[in-house]
Amino acid sequence: MLNIDEFSSKSLVENTSEKIVKLIVENEVSVGQKLPNEYELSKQLGVSRNTIREAIRALVSRNIVEIRRGAGTFVSQKLGIADDPLGLTFIKDKEKVYLDLIQIRFILEPPIASLAAQNATEEEIEKLGQLCDDVEKLLLAGKDPVEKDIEFHTQIAKCSKNRVVPNLIPIINAAITVFTRIKENKVASRTIEAHREIFEAIKAHQCNDAQDAMILHLAYNRNKLRKTVQI
Amino acid sequence: MLNIDEFSSKSLVENTSEKIVKLIVENEVSVGQKLPNEYELSKQLGVSRNTIREAIRALVSRNIVEIRRGAGTFVSQKLGIADDPLGLTFIKDKEKVYLDLIQIRFILEPPIASLAAQNATEEEIEKLGQLCDDVEKLLLAGKDPVEKDIEFHTQIAKCSKNRVVPNLIPIINAAITVFTRIKENKVASRTIEAHREIFEAIKAHQCNDAQDAMILHLAYNRNKLRKTVQI
Repeated sequence: MLNIDEFSSKSLVENTSEKIVKLIVENEVSVGQKLPNEYELSKQLGVSRNTIREAIRALVSRNIVEIRRGAGTFVSQKLGIADDPLGLTFIKDKEKVYLDLIQIRFILEPPIASLAAQNATEEEIEKLGQLCDDVEKLLLAGKDPVEKDIEFHTQIAKCSKNRVVPNLIPIINAAITVFTRIKENKVASRTIEAHREIFEAIKAHQCNDAQDAMILHLAYNRNKLRKTVQI
Repeated sequence: MLNIDEFSSKSLVENTSEKIVKLIVENEVSVGQKLPNEYELSKQLGVSRNTIREAIRALVSRNIVEIRRGAGTFVSQKLGIADDPLGLTFIKDKEKVYLDLIQIRFILEPPIASLAAQNATEEEIEKLGQLCDDVEKLLLAGKDPVEKDIEFHTQIAKCSKNRVVPNLIPIINAAITVFTRIKENKVASRTIEAHREIFEAIKAHQCNDAQDAMILHLAYNRNKLRKTVQI
């Protein structure tokens, strides 16, 4: 049976984890920056190095920090967003879950595109244009555009100025790609065109055009998906 | 500095964690059920008991399993849904984040209410009615209805038959309650009325009515919130 003693100080470890998180947030330690070492943390928080080690381990599991061998502990690029934040692991009927994820995209992304058109700054629009180009280049070269595609949709979410949606979009979109990837030339050229339309509408601050372009983009993909994957 | 050796077998531990998850899903071990003990897992997966212990620890951090002292390891009630799945910990400007969360509710919940009216089974409707009653009783007794309120909205998500939204709604709604709780009698009576309207529309399978009732419910609350909390 499990060695229960190993877990007996759970609340102290949890408590220490939360203190380290507080320390990161309050001192504005940015992504990729190094944390104080084990000895310093132990002294600062008044707990044993063993507790610090366990607390760090818990934060690694939560994607808040990452350990680089021989270099130390750093604030993770993953920004504390969990690997499977929505608990999809436990949903049975996995083959149909991506349809539910696409349904959520249909609900969320068009109004977000509209908000993006309303609120995007020049700098954000420039970055969106760059990502639009990046996806296009990958598609024309016959390479997998999925990561850049998610970045494109996440950048639209950032333009919306809603601070939570940029964390939500990559979670949903990444989950979809687990289930299916379409690689057809026809889809590729349509994606290039659709992304360009969305980008131009946001750039011109045309809310309704951005919303419509997003609806068309998602509807085309869903329609294609239904034909490709037998549901 | 950190004792790096402690983390050197990270990928083996991660790998083992994933194998345990697979074991849970494939054997359909339900919430609250016990996992095989450390010795059995070690034998079954061909890794040391130390690795099993670390893998279990990682799964505890991810809310997939929980340890009950002296009893063993069980599949967690939290269903692998992370504590802060959206990484809100790292969002600065916390005082404004709840407005963004409400904006997401505005986008998501009305169409979900419409889907609920379309797809709810008799059994699901009965449970929704029960939760409607529960919230009403708590409000009339002047007690905090937040948990039951989240259950009510989550049950609507379940009625929609989208398998992901029921995991999303409690995350968003619970995050909002962290920031603000309104306790006014006027709001209470309006909430009772609004919940009843939503419930009746879903029960009658009236999609548009359910959507409208949800919009009115959220709009009233947001309006109230803007007046109560100075933004």
